[in-house]
Amino acid sequence: MADQKDGITPRAKNYSQWYLDVIAAAGLADNSPVRGCMVIKPNGYAIWENIQKILDLMFKETGVENTYFPLFIPISFLQKEATHVEGFAKECAVVTHHRLKVDEKGKLVPAALLEEPLIVRPTSETIIYETFSRWIKSYRDLPLLINQWANVVRWEMRTRLFLRTTEFLWQEGHTAHASKEEAESETMQMLKIYRRFAEEYLAIPVIPGKKSESEKFAGADFTTTIEAMMQDGRALQAGTSHMLGQNFAKVFEVKYLDKSGGEQFVWQTSWGLSTRIIGALIMVHSDDIGLVLPPKIASTQVVITVIGKSEIEREAAATKAKEIAANLRQIGVSSKIDDRDERPGVKFFEWERKGIPVRIEIGPKDLEKGSMMLVRRDTGEKEIVAENEVAQKVSELLEAIQSNLFQRAVAFRSENTHEVNSWEEFQDVISKKGGFLMAHWCGNAECEEKIKEETRATIRCLPFDRKEEKGKCIFCGEESNSRVIFAKAY
Amino acid sequence: MADQKDGITPRAKNYSQWYLDVIAAAGLADNSPVRGCMVIKPNGYAIWENIQKILDLMFKETGVENTYFPLFIPISFLQKEATHVEGFAKECAVVTHHRLKVDEKGKLVPAALLEEPLIVRPTSETIIYETFSRWIKSYRDLPLLINQWANVVRWEMRTRLFLRTTEFLWQEGHTAHASKEEAESETMQMLKIYRRFAEEYLAIPVIPGKKSESEKFAGADFTTTIEAMMQDGRALQAGTSHMLGQNFAKVFEVKYLDKSGGEQFVWQTSWGLSTRIIGALIMVHSDDIGLVLPPKIASTQVVITVIGKSEIEREAAATKAKEIAANLRQIGVSSKIDDRDERPGVKFFEWERKGIPVRIEIGPKDLEKGSMMLVRRDTGEKEIVAENEVAQKVSELLEAIQSNLFQRAVAFRSENTHEVNSWEEFQDVISKKGGFLMAHWCGNAECEEKIKEETRATIRCLPFDRKEEKGKCIFCGEESNSRVIFAKAY
Repeated sequence: MADQKDGITPRAKNYSQWYLDVIAAAGLADNSPVRGCMVIKPNGYAIWENIQKILDLMFKETGVENTYFPLFIPISFLQKEATHVEGFAKECAVVTHHRLKVDEKGKLVPAALLEEPLIVRPTSETIIYETFSRWIKSYRDLPLLINQWANVVRWEMRTRLFLRTTEFLWQEGHTAHASKEEAESETMQMLKIYRRFAEEYLAIPVIPGKKSESEKFAGADFTTTIEAMMQDGRALQAGTSHMLGQNFAKVFEVKYLDKSGGEQFVWQTSWGLSTRIIGALIMVHSDDIGLVLPPKIASTQVVITVIGKSEIEREAAATKAKEIAANLRQIGVSSKIDDRDERPGVKFFEWERKGIPVRIEIGPKDLEKGSMMLVRRDTGEKEIVAENEVAQKVSELLEAIQSNLFQRAVAFRSENTHEVNSWEEFQDVISKKGGFLMAHWCGNAECEEKIKEETRATIRCLPFDRKEEKGKCIFCGEESNSRVIFAKAY
Repeated sequence: MADQKDGITPRAKNYSQWYLDVIAAAGLADNSPVRGCMVIKPNGYAIWENIQKILDLMFKETGVENTYFPLFIPISFLQKEATHVEGFAKECAVVTHHRLKVDEKGKLVPAALLEEPLIVRPTSETIIYETFSRWIKSYRDLPLLINQWANVVRWEMRTRLFLRTTEFLWQEGHTAHASKEEAESETMQMLKIYRRFAEEYLAIPVIPGKKSESEKFAGADFTTTIEAMMQDGRALQAGTSHMLGQNFAKVFEVKYLDKSGGEQFVWQTSWGLSTRIIGALIMVHSDDIGLVLPPKIASTQVVITVIGKSEIEREAAATKAKEIAANLRQIGVSSKIDDRDERPGVKFFEWERKGIPVRIEIGPKDLEKGSMMLVRRDTGEKEIVAENEVAQKVSELLEAIQSNLFQRAVAFRSENTHEVNSWEEFQDVISKKGGFLMAHWCGNAECEEKIKEETRATIRCLPFDRKEEKGKCIFCGEESNSRVIFAKAY
């Protein structure tokens, strides 16, 4: 299908357009005729499949099991938790009818009104915990650890592929525990999994921390988050894990009998990561040529391009390519052979835009010499390698690329993280440099709100590893014990 | 969580209740508070995950790639294909509003009306082919082979766990081709995959054939199906593959430039298999004790139950159990150790109800003798096996069970398939014996409809391997060249 676009707008010229150009050139996603909904194309969905595979295994290793809960939620369920409904009411898609009929003008129109409107899940706490209240009877049923891979809908006014779409895909984990301590430790455990996943697989460095009261999940006691920096210096919340306390348990009567026969409310957590993270993956690593994918998340790690003017030349190279592909498969490296009758430049261009980490070029001269050219996508570096060393070299290169992408992103984040110590400095840095601003904050929601109004910067998190340091709130001058991270965010 | 129910109603007493009891006892699914929607519990979802894993690989081996298309479809899209809309209009859930607000009585109500109502996809031909029309430009873009794993909604009046639910999970494949022949061959290829999957993995024998005109997919040129027989003799359509011809291509203008530069409509197919198949899996193999799972689809193939009166005895047995589990893992067999301090009978009962194919019992006497007891779930047969032969024996048993379940189902189907040659015989057999009735039919939709009205039996398919045989339509007496399959169906 037609993935190609002519040119990719350079980041420096128009970052938003660059982002969309990279997605189009790599064939990751497309707009759909439904307002705010996207189509995830094969190359994009392959990334999501890898994300699912890796995360799913990590979850299961902690005892989590997968389930599936209904797409629809009765409107009355949402209403039960007051904060929760406030957080989501504005974004709900509402099913009011079933059946269609043809009206007098020959137009299809909704026919039968539902007794109670249903909302399309924006998240599933209410429907899942209503069910938990029937599943959980005694302490023997705890902990209950479940997850679902599902689509959710939040009616967004301004949408952007992957980053903010009316419908998106995600996983949502939901757990119930006998004690507060256990639920808190589950909250932290899942955040650690998200961090490990982001850093080790996606090569995205993240800062784990706690959300401020204003930014926490509607219905949680507290929310933990991992925050990443994009190449334009803006922040992206890459995954969240919520300590729900007993808020939902009390509304949905999720109770258990403890060992001494007493009735107790459970303690709960929920945690989620969505297709949004693909937006982060694109924005952290890609360049003006196109997509750059970390080897551990790329479904094709190597492309072997066959070069030759005549069919005979190409066939000889293709035979060798198959040998190399088989060798790579043996060491667990996925590859694809491009033996199309196209100019080499055209092929290179295409695979570079699609972000394949390593390219091997095999042509008639290489066959003569018993060597081939290896090209890294991240740096563009080329190297001629003896045929019998190719598999080993590719394996080393993939590791080197994975590590380089992570280090590069860490360095970028350091360069764009600024300690600011006065309101003037804050305004100056946020408007001229952007990035993460480490600043003192009094803990007051009013200051947070005013800072947001004036600069559009929000508190991304109170990092868990922040050090104690006496200082004064950047906005009101009240005392503060440590710095928090402010940034403009996606 | 509380999976257990006290007793399982015998099949002979009440087949419908037996089905629900097996589901409850095995912890597969639960009703939800949303009309007609189910909750798929961990044990049920694990089956779906295995189905996905196996089928997904089979699809990909034919060049199919995964994608994701929007949940919502503009009402005007559905209207474009006249037959299609007729087929689905009565079952659509309709989103008419976004946003909720609190009304004067403090009740949450829908707030903002959409310009155009959206339906929740009952299937995705329209939204996908509208997109295809933008993706496909030339013959080089063909064939286009995509699939999606998704939830769909069909507003059903009478629902039953797995078999018929308002929301269900499925995969839907959609392809576009340059020629009619290629599309037809794709239609057949995917049906073959469904058949192989049903027979080799689920141990469900199926009859592949063509649907009658009345029973075909709304919008297809023709529909192919695999039909299975349940233990009550009723049929279940286990998967369908549709040749769509150019019907949708013409409405959505899915065109390509052929090699000579001429504009052509593509030829299309679609094919789907849903969580319904889990209902078939339950109904084909299970017995009055509970669930029976074919080893190839069971996520846990072996349960190792540790027996002992004292903690010391149980610990010794548990140590041995871990050894055995490790040996099994080495030969690719999944197992679970049950070392709870419970009476052996309670443990056996539980795993039998959950359908684990093989049980290994290890107790103090077994340890002394260096042997263990192996029990087959399908036949209940027990065998004492020397410890060093256990892994080998389990591997043989799993194969034997897989094959036995399939053979047993084939035999059951043979016993319950009847050639009938007169209308009296038809009525008699369908009401007294049920099963599959092989009968002559004139090919006329009116006869088909009247037979359905009078007996509730429908034409399940025109089997591909039906032999030519002169005869007379069971209903009207007109000439017929071969027999078709009639049955009552789920």
